[in-house]
Order: sequence, then C-alpha cells, then structure tokens
Amino acid sequence: MQLRGWVRTVRAQKDVSFVEVNDGSSLSGIQAVVTSDAEGASVLANGDITTGASVVIEGDVVESPGGKQKVEVKATSVRLVGSADASTFPLQKKRHTLEFLRGIAHLRPRTNTIGAVMRVRNQLAYATHTFFQSHDFTYVNTPIVTASDCEGAGEQFQVTTLLNGADGAAAAPAPAPASTAEVAAAAAAAAEQGAAVKALKEKKKAGEATKEEVDEAVKTLLELKATAEALASPVAAAGAPASREVPRNKDGSVDYAQDFFSKPSYLTVSGQLNAEIYACAMRDVYTFGPTFRAENSNTSRHLAEFWMVEPELAFADLQDDMDCAEAYLKHCVAHVLEHCDEDLAFFEKNISKDNLRERLRSVAAQDFARITYTEAVEHVVAAAESGAKKFEFPVEWGADLQSEHERYLTEVVFENRPVIVRDYPKGIKAFYMRENDDGKTVAAMDMLVPGVGELMGGSQREERLDVLERRIEEVGLEKETYWWYLDLRRYGSVPHAGFGLGFERLVQYCTGVENIRDVIPFPRFPGSAEF
Amino acid sequence: MQLRGWVRTVRAQKDVSFVEVNDGSSLSGIQAVVTSDAEGASVLANGDITTGASVVIEGDVVESPGGKQKVEVKATSVRLVGSADASTFPLQKKRHTLEFLRGIAHLRPRTNTIGAVMRVRNQLAYATHTFFQSHDFTYVNTPIVTASDCEGAGEQFQVTTLLNGADGAAAAPAPAPASTAEVAAAAAAAAEQGAAVKALKEKKKAGEATKEEVDEAVKTLLELKATAEALASPVAAAGAPASREVPRNKDGSVDYAQDFFSKPSYLTVSGQLNAEIYACAMRDVYTFGPTFRAENSNTSRHLAEFWMVEPELAFADLQDDMDCAEAYLKHCVAHVLEHCDEDLAFFEKNISKDNLRERLRSVAAQDFARITYTEAVEHVVAAAESGAKKFEFPVEWGADLQSEHERYLTEVVFENRPVIVRDYPKGIKAFYMRENDDGKTVAAMDMLVPGVGELMGGSQREERLDVLERRIEEVGLEKETYWWYLDLRRYGSVPHAGFGLGFERLVQYCTGVENIRDVIPFPRFPGSAEF
Repeated sequence: MQLRGWVRTVRAQKDVSFVEVNDGSSLSGIQAVVTSDAEGASVLANGDITTGASVVIEGDVVESPGGKQKVEVKATSVRLVGSADASTFPLQKKRHTLEFLRGIAHLRPRTNTIGAVMRVRNQLAYATHTFFQSHDFTYVNTPIVTASDCEGAGEQFQVTTLLNGADGAAAAPAPAPASTAEVAAAAAAAAEQGAAVKALKEKKKAGEATKEEVDEAVKTLLELKATAEALASPVAAAGAPASREVPRNKDGSVDYAQDFFSKPSYLTVSGQLNAEIYACAMRDVYTFGPTFRAENSNTSRHLAEFWMVEPELAFADLQDDMDCAEAYLKHCVAHVLEHCDEDLAFFEKNISKDNLRERLRSVAAQDFARITYTEAVEHVVAAAESGAKKFEFPVEWGADLQSEHERYLTEVVFENRPVIVRDYPKGIKAFYMRENDDGKTVAAMDMLVPGVGELMGGSQREERLDVLERRIEEVGLEKETYWWYLDLRRYGSVPHAGFGLGFERLVQYCTGVENIRDVIPFPRFPGSAEF
Repeated sequence: MQLRGWVRTVRAQKDVSFVEVNDGSSLSGIQAVVTSDAEGASVLANGDITTGASVVIEGDVVESPGGKQKVEVKATSVRLVGSADASTFPLQKKRHTLEFLRGIAHLRPRTNTIGAVMRVRNQLAYATHTFFQSHDFTYVNTPIVTASDCEGAGEQFQVTTLLNGADGAAAAPAPAPASTAEVAAAAAAAAEQGAAVKALKEKKKAGEATKEEVDEAVKTLLELKATAEALASPVAAAGAPASREVPRNKDGSVDYAQDFFSKPSYLTVSGQLNAEIYACAMRDVYTFGPTFRAENSNTSRHLAEFWMVEPELAFADLQDDMDCAEAYLKHCVAHVLEHCDEDLAFFEKNISKDNLRERLRSVAAQDFARITYTEAVEHVVAAAESGAKKFEFPVEWGADLQSEHERYLTEVVFENRPVIVRDYPKGIKAFYMRENDDGKTVAAMDMLVPGVGELMGGSQREERLDVLERRIEEVGLEKETYWWYLDLRRYGSVPHAGFGLGFERLVQYCTGVENIRDVIPFPRFPGSAEF
C-alpha cells in the first residue's frame, strides 16, 4: 500500500525507524517501520524526516508487534515530499493549548484535536442533509445579504461599497487590475449585444419583435458598455464613488442610493423569514448556511459568523415542530456514534468532562422530556423555596429562564435528559410566534440539553393575518417593512412551524469542546478576521 | 389519503368540481374530484376555493378517467385553510414572464417553473454532498467575512459596523433594544465569571492554579462586564461609534481600528485559499457556500451573491483534478436524470432550446474531450483561416478564449461534448497556479460545456515555495499578505489541486434556464437586495 500524509512523530533507532504518518482521515494514522534496506531510507538517516514533513511511503501492511496499533506498514520505499524545518515549525510533539492553536489556524487542522473536531463536524453536516432529504425536505439557500431585518434578532453587519473610495488605496486591498483578457471579454459581450440589437431592430421593422423587446435589448447593451468601460478604466471602482468621502444627501444623511444595492444592506441574522416563503410553496424546507451577529461579545459561546440549520414545516404545528427537532437531534447523535467512534473516544479521554459516548447514546435512546414554561418556572421556584437548590437569580413567571435554571431542569429535574420547554410568555419572544388561546403565551419552544443549555429554539408561526398585523404594531415594528411576509398570510396561508439550530453548538455538544472558536475552521469575533 | 397544498386551478361544474392541488413536491400535483356530497363541499359552491388558496382534502385515490393524469383523489371532505382573494392574488392561471415573477420572489416558488428549478437545485446540492462524501472528502466551511483577498478575483463588498452611527437612526434598522432577559443573562454571566475568578485566586494561593490561568479568567471577566454594560446602555451600538461621522485617523484615512474586526474586512470571493489549508492537513476537502462579487454587472450571467462548490485534492496533480471534475459533473447529471425526470421533461418542453435530457444523458455517458490551450488556439485559428467559421474576435496565443471560441470548440469541433482545456498561458491566470516546465504556461484547466460555456475552472496549485514567492512578486502582490499561504509550502508542502464551480451555472446547465436570477431563491444584483 501507499501511505501519503504528514509525519506526526519519528523515532529513529540504529537500524530501524518508526514514522507515524497521518493524513487527517483518522485520529491514529499509521505507523511505518523503515529499515535501512528500504529505498530512500537515507532521508531518515539524514534527519530530513521530521514532525510536520510530508511523505510518501510504500510498503506492506503487517500485523504490529507493539500493542499500540493493530497493523503497521513495513516500508519498501520512503520519499520526502515537503520538509518542515524543526527549528521553526510551530507544531511540535508536545501538546499545545487550544488558545495557542487559534493563532495558527492555518496549521491547527494538523493536530489531533482540531482534526477530530472537523471530522465530527463533517459527519454532523452530512447527517443534517441525509436526515432532511430522507424526510423529503427541500434544501433552500436563503440570502446572505439582505435589506430586511429578521425581528431585530441582533446587531447586524452592514454590507457596502461606499467605503471603497473613502480611504484612498492604502486600506482597501488594491483591486487587481482587470486583465487584458477580461477587458477584451467585456468589449466582446458589448459588441455581441450590439449585433443583437441591430438584428432585433430589423425584426421589429418586419413586425417580428416588439418595442419592449428592443428597449430591453438596448438597456442591456448600455449596461454592458458601461461594464466594459469601467473595466478598461484603471481607477473606477464598481459602484463606488472615487472620492475619499462617504456620499451624503443634502440633509447630511448617507446617500445610500449610491450604494451597491441602492439601500442600506446587511448580513443576515437568520434565514427564517425567507424559509417561510418556500415552506408556504413547497411544504417542508431547510436551510444550512452562515448567519452573522455584530455583537461585541468576546465569550467562548459567541461568534460573529456561524452556521445555522433552519427547518421550516408547512401544515405543521408546535407538536410537529418538537417531534422534528427531537428526531433530528437523535439522528445526528446516532450518526456520529456510528461514524466517529475513535474521535469520540478521544474527546471522552481528553476534552469532555463527562462520559461523552454514554451521554450521546442515552440521548439517542430515550424520549425527551417536554414541559411548559409555566411548569418549568414552578420546578425552579419550588427548588428555590424548599432550599433544595440555591440560584443566583430568582425567576418569576414572565422572565426568561437563566442558564442556571435551564441546567437545573435538564441535569437535576430530568436527570440529564434533554428537555423541550414550550409556551413561553409572549413578552419575551418574537412577534412572529403564534399566540396561544390564553392570550398570554406563544407557541414557542426551546430545546435544552445537559452541558450546552439551549441547543435549538423554534416556534409555530403566526399564520392569522389580523393577529400578525396586531403583533407587529404591538412591538413597534413597521407593517410596510413586512409586506411580503404578510402576503404569505394573505394568500393561501397555512399553519407552519420551524426551529433554528446553531450548528457550532451541535458540534460542541457532540465533542465536549468548550470554546466555540475551536469547532469552526476559521472563527470570526471582535478584532479577528484573520486567515 | 390527505391532500394538503395550494390550489392551482378550479373547474366548477354543476354537480362536480375539479381542484388541482399542488404542494410543491412535484410538478403535476394531484387532481381532486369533489362532488356535492363531500363534507364541506359548500366552500366550492360559495366560490371560496380559488387559485392560490390552501386546502386540506381527504379522499380515496382512484384511477383517473381523464387522460391527463393516472390517478386522482375522490374527495370525501374539503377544508379551506387559507383563502386567496382572486382580485388581488398576483399569480393567476395565465403564464407569467420570469421577469414579472422576479418582482414577487415571495410568491414565485408557487409557480411551475420556479418550483421545478428549486427541486432540481435541491437534488444538485444533495448530489454534490453524496458525491464528495462517498469519495471521502471532508466538508469544510470556509469563512464568509475575511480580511484576506483571494488573488483580487473580483471587486469585494466591505463588511463594517462603522456606518451604523453615520446616518442617525433613520437609515439603519433600529437595533432591537436588549430585552430585560438579555440584560439579566449578561449580568449573570459576568457574575458567574466573577465567582470563578475568586475561586481561581484561592486556588492560586494554594498552588493549584497558575498566574496565567488567573489572568485569562480576569480578562474574560472584564469582557463579560463590558458586554453586560453595553447591553444595558440604550445608546451604545456594538463596536460602532455613536457619531454621525465615519471615524478618521489624523491623516484623514478611515480609522479601521474602530471597526468590528479592527481592520478593513470583506465578503469572500472564494474559499479556495482556506480550503487549501484544510487539504494540506486532511487530504481531500470541499466547500459549498456563498461567495460574492461587487461588480456592477447587470447581465443574465452574473449575481452579486452566488454559491460555489470548491473541492481541493491533496497529493494530486492536474490530471487528478480533471478526473475529479469530470466524475463530479457526471454524477450530478446522472442524479438529476434519475430524480427529476418530470421536471426535466417540463424544461425540455417549455424552457430549454434543445433536447435537454438527451444532452444530459450523453454527458453522463461519454468521456469528455481534453485538449491543451495551445491546441484550442490552433483549432480556432485554423477555422478562421480556412473560412470554415467566422469569428467576431481573432485569437492569438496568449489571449483568453472568447465565448464564441469556446462555443466553437464544444459545439462544433467536439460535436456537443464537454471539453476540458488545460495549460493556459501564465499571463492570463492567477499567481497560485503551478508553473509548467515550459516556463510559459500554468497547470490550469477550464471545463467548457455546450450552451453554458465555462462551467468549472481549476488548477494545480504552486507547491514550490521559491516559485510561489517569485510569482507573487511578479504579479505585484505583497508576500507579507500571504504569510500563512506560504507557510503551507514551508512546512510539509504537497502537490495539490482543485477547482471551482459556480453552483447556479450548474443549475442553469441542467435546466436550460437562461437568466441566472431565476435559479437562485433570492437573487442579489446591483440595486436589488429585496426579500
């Protein structure tokens, strides 16, 4: 067989060397045994094969006499592909802290921990697709840039081309000058369209084309010409004024008419409202894409950029929603238990503070507890009053549950079972959640899991036009902003429900990794967009 | 059975009505036959069941006497779920133009064409995952926001919080005030951390904790306190100055130290460089995520936001890369042929200008042609010189091929076969592509397909540190900017290669839909970030 990968460790003895090679496909890698008669064995004698070097080793798989691994490769040839200077290569044999590794995000996937995290992450992503596809959900790509706002779910990043010219050439990366080929291609496109316009005008004379068709073609031609000219000009940046000032209206406000999208635009905080559009046309759908928060939180639980899974079910109520959320989590957990045993064992031994696989197995096996918010508050109040448990914060009906309360529920009351809490007071939930008949609560649900706390949150959506309009007014939003969202209730409205899962939280839950920055390949947080 | 969906058409006769119900799961939907004895049949008599209304119909599946469909549902009960006022509902029975539908992106998935597009798109996305997962590729989420630049592949959107305060409250959506619960949660987190710091200090006294651990905990505490304070304050916007002016340095340049990421940050134009990091640690990987171009192109071929698939193979050369690209496209095509026959037949009849399924079948069945760029130029020049074909633009060695040349190659020379063109002149390709031994060309490849033109582009990456450094200098880029990219060549470098596919182009290719704005749920282009 042929081993191709990166050297983790080398133990060179007089006549034989042991080289541990890892290609990232599994935690343990394979040990190659190289004796001096192997072709190219001199690279070992020379000390060129060091930790971090890339190698190709050919040989035969044999049973390993050592206890550490079952098989090893008896090398017939060894080839050094790329060296790694031991005096500067940052990843040496010793264990590095996860914090240190964050500073070398381009090398950390070569470590045991980050490699294992990314294999589990990959399997969870695939399990997400196999689950929803096998249940006939349609995958929908909701937009990343949006001029809409999802319930003010959080601070938003602005997306703009207005600053392109506002800082001279120093700050923005110099746009690569358009290559001659690009300029020529743009000119060619314009020329082609010119010919098309000509032909169309002839056709119009012959009565075979309408004025609208000609006008449309001319419009396209003008746009193509503008593009070609912009490309040919070395200074003009697309859509951006070449001045150092942000363009302003007469009243001093920013002139967004000059921005790329002609109005203030933002990075999405949730694809839910867009997913509802598709659920109200194609029944069950799901999203799986990046979402953003511009909140200045430097904690181990928050990222500025993270991936979310947001299923949306049509002709469905909160019960269906909870059933789906529970089945989805169980599927994910069963999938990683089946495909990532070696990695999970590694986390269990080195990272997670509990018996990880045991915990996951029990999640997959048992029904989740389901209680109302009101019952949850009663549990907490009773524990506080009896002195059975001391809480930092009191709770009373109408306030959100603190993480200490949520942990008490999942860990103590329900003995490390996931708990779904439903029917929250409407005052602490978003306007689009369906009002219950009591007039005080909404059909919202949070799934709480031991260790992580809230893993998913969802709701049945308000499908009654009049109720939704009233709720929008009550919370002080503008009905006009939500015209298309209201249209879904105006034309063929259906009961529907969905939930959102922070994908990184799921990876944390299945690995026990404490800091969310270690479960995403390139974490973004205040002050950090490196790599 | 129970039918749940939206009414497409109603034909009411005296004693019997025919209601075509569609739930987006297939093109044709199901016809329900409702006689006056069915429960709730009065809603039909009253005229409440109109195009666009949502209904639940129960009944028995019976053979259809009409020729149009094989089966129909003989209704036992009919229930109107949500009405759709026929006088205002924009989607009437007649056929609407795709341009009209773009203006009602929230309703267009309820049409035959957009529904079919999204079902094919869903299957192509799933085929992408099944292909790469079954070939042991790891799915990697590369970052969306980045301070790096991928070879100046295009104009970039800037991501910022600096404009948040620059326009008063009018332009930016009012940030939702933090709820009491959020404020309390932040305060609780700070308090918890305070207790942890206290405990740690005690431990340090007892020699059980290090100074570094205490310092780290204190740092976190300060951050949490800052977060809690910011949340409690009604004015402070995260990371943004509350002034109406963009903050400036003394020299007048924008003060990016005050921006969220502390430096100018952009939306990614490609995940390739990041994918290389993971390929150089875990072997074969792939990305599938959104990418962005701030180019002011108002054409039917460009979007400001689109999804890309970018596989990256380690220990691989251009040959492996081409093999992978060809196998991937064949897999996708075979998958939609298997799962989307009804939709493909619809496109064949109404949209695409060729025999769509025949074309796709032939792609799946035959080997792609593979030629060098030099051979491609020879073909074009020969045709032009012999007069066999007239081109708008001449071609000479060193210039990029125009779309008319590409079409001549795939459609005429290779008789509607996909063609992979390789070994392009280095002057028209990016710096990271591997230099061939001739010193003039690079190991780049483009896959051309009849109809669409370039569908994928890829290359073997330059893995030799000295050559890459020289190339970076030659094209006028800064080595310092690419420090981590160069590190991949410094430590355990391996030959690797990859390609990029614009996912929407693939959807166009498999449906025949001409305008790229019609194959993505919510298209973004200059002046448009609606919905």
